[in-house]
Amino acid sequence: MKPYVIGFDLGGTNSVFGIVDARGEIKATTAIKTGNYATAEEYVDACVAALQPIIEQVGGIEKIKAMGIGAPNGNYYSGTIEFAPNLSWGHGKVPLAQMFSERLEGIPVALTNDANAAAIGEMVYGVARGMKNFIVITLGTGVGSGIVVNGQVLYGCDGFAGELGHVIMVRGEEGRSCGCGRKGCLEAYCSATGVARTARELLAKTQRPSLLREMNPDDITSLDVSIAAGKGDELAKEIYEFTGRMLGEACADFAAFSSPEAFIFFGGMVKAGDLIMKPIEQAYNENVLNVFKGKAKFLVSGLDGASAAVLGASAIGWEIQ
Amino acid sequence: MKPYVIGFDLGGTNSVFGIVDARGEIKATTAIKTGNYATAEEYVDACVAALQPIIEQVGGIEKIKAMGIGAPNGNYYSGTIEFAPNLSWGHGKVPLAQMFSERLEGIPVALTNDANAAAIGEMVYGVARGMKNFIVITLGTGVGSGIVVNGQVLYGCDGFAGELGHVIMVRGEEGRSCGCGRKGCLEAYCSATGVARTARELLAKTQRPSLLREMNPDDITSLDVSIAAGKGDELAKEIYEFTGRMLGEACADFAAFSSPEAFIFFGGMVKAGDLIMKPIEQAYNENVLNVFKGKAKFLVSGLDGASAAVLGASAIGWEIQ
Repeated sequence: MKPYVIGFDLGGTNSVFGIVDARGEIKATTAIKTGNYATAEEYVDACVAALQPIIEQVGGIEKIKAMGIGAPNGNYYSGTIEFAPNLSWGHGKVPLAQMFSERLEGIPVALTNDANAAAIGEMVYGVARGMKNFIVITLGTGVGSGIVVNGQVLYGCDGFAGELGHVIMVRGEEGRSCGCGRKGCLEAYCSATGVARTARELLAKTQRPSLLREMNPDDITSLDVSIAAGKGDELAKEIYEFTGRMLGEACADFAAFSSPEAFIFFGGMVKAGDLIMKPIEQAYNENVLNVFKGKAKFLVSGLDGASAAVLGASAIGWEIQ
Repeated sequence: MKPYVIGFDLGGTNSVFGIVDARGEIKATTAIKTGNYATAEEYVDACVAALQPIIEQVGGIEKIKAMGIGAPNGNYYSGTIEFAPNLSWGHGKVPLAQMFSERLEGIPVALTNDANAAAIGEMVYGVARGMKNFIVITLGTGVGSGIVVNGQVLYGCDGFAGELGHVIMVRGEEGRSCGCGRKGCLEAYCSATGVARTARELLAKTQRPSLLREMNPDDITSLDVSIAAGKGDELAKEIYEFTGRMLGEACADFAAFSSPEAFIFFGGMVKAGDLIMKPIEQAYNENVLNVFKGKAKFLVSGLDGASAAVLGASAIGWEIQ
């Protein structure tokens, strides 16, 4: 019996590793900067060098059943990272799962995108335990999603299903430009950068007083909006209201698709609590088709922020047959 | 071995039954008017009376493995019809699967909505053979959908998933009123009634010549638009262009959800052929996220119109374990 799995959260800034047991306890952990490696080979070498000490710490590679990787633009079917804009070595198609497997004595390695890893993490260790149909929405620099249907992550025909940050919420030319090159995507409004943009637009459009006026508009982040809202700033609260309502309207469309038991929100912005969650649920129930009204739960991720991504990644390692 | 399944297409006007073998050949068929029965019991009695002769024709009930029903507002999980507005006896919650099973010597009966039945029909007998991820969109009086993911119909937590006719395409007050009580649904634009409404709007808004001006605007149906377009009428062609483009934009959002291998269109409006299919595909590829561009196929149902619904319904009978 091999009692551990390596969970690997590959982020734009940090690469975090944890060795996790079947109950979701992290036995050992380490991290490196994702940094400016020239090639994927150099990056993987640096990762494996960092991993060796913690692998030894739990008794060696023969104690490790598998590795699970959650990574931006990760494709579950192919085990590759494809065209990841924020990784210096990830602009082509990088067979990351295979590369790690070869350097770790052939242990099986599964890879998926970060939002799918979060969804599996919620199902195995978080608030979605026992659920078979739910959607995890990650609110960070972008808006990601992991969709679970009949107890399985929805990968679609090519492994790229679940890009709910890129449904169009504002059609036509007035839609905000999105990083994907199109206009009006949910992500352009409801990501952390979208929230900061809403703040700048609202400050410019009105003369209303706000704590946010004390800052250079270009420096405002979603965290500043959250802090101002926490202090009772009305304009900041309105920004969350706007953001939450748009998320709720989007979720009403998602219900027409997969009728989930719950929507689970994950990421830094969720720390705003009721400020964001209440408008989401309210707009959802006002906008959703009658047959779905009042059915879905709106939950905040049950995974501890620091370890959530690593646990999620480890969970896809456990799923390898 | 029981060689046959009863397929039952329960429509607002007609109730059509077929006894189908495993290769999708219809061995015997009959139909009654869905009509104005006062109670579900009376309706089921009339159905069973009509069924008896064709059951005898294939050798009796012991030759029948199961029954599959495709019905408006049908719920697969509960085997019930719920709040079906167009059925005189269907306004509450009717346990139709159980009622038929009891009157047909206990054979297993499965029930689902008509669009899901069409999806299973395509998978078993139609153009989706061998596909595991696809979406059937039915264009009729309404817009329905059957979503297949990992080779299974997506039912969601309550059996009501796949209501893609009710995603919001035009947000806010300018959205067209939909039969569901909300505004801006895909169905309000792209159903047969939506197409007729587009025709009336366009005729009223412009002075452009059109064969459709020879009719009383209130009498125009989508069939009239199709006939006019077939004769080269520019205004009628523009109506299909508008309808197709909106369907294509909607499909672009659906791709972000489940990344299907194909979109399969089903129903009377599809007879317009390229007039509707070309703008769908074009708008899809113009609007979809880069990673999905050019991947999905746009297909017309491979099932013969007259028997398609019965075959689809029979297919869910075969699926009963």
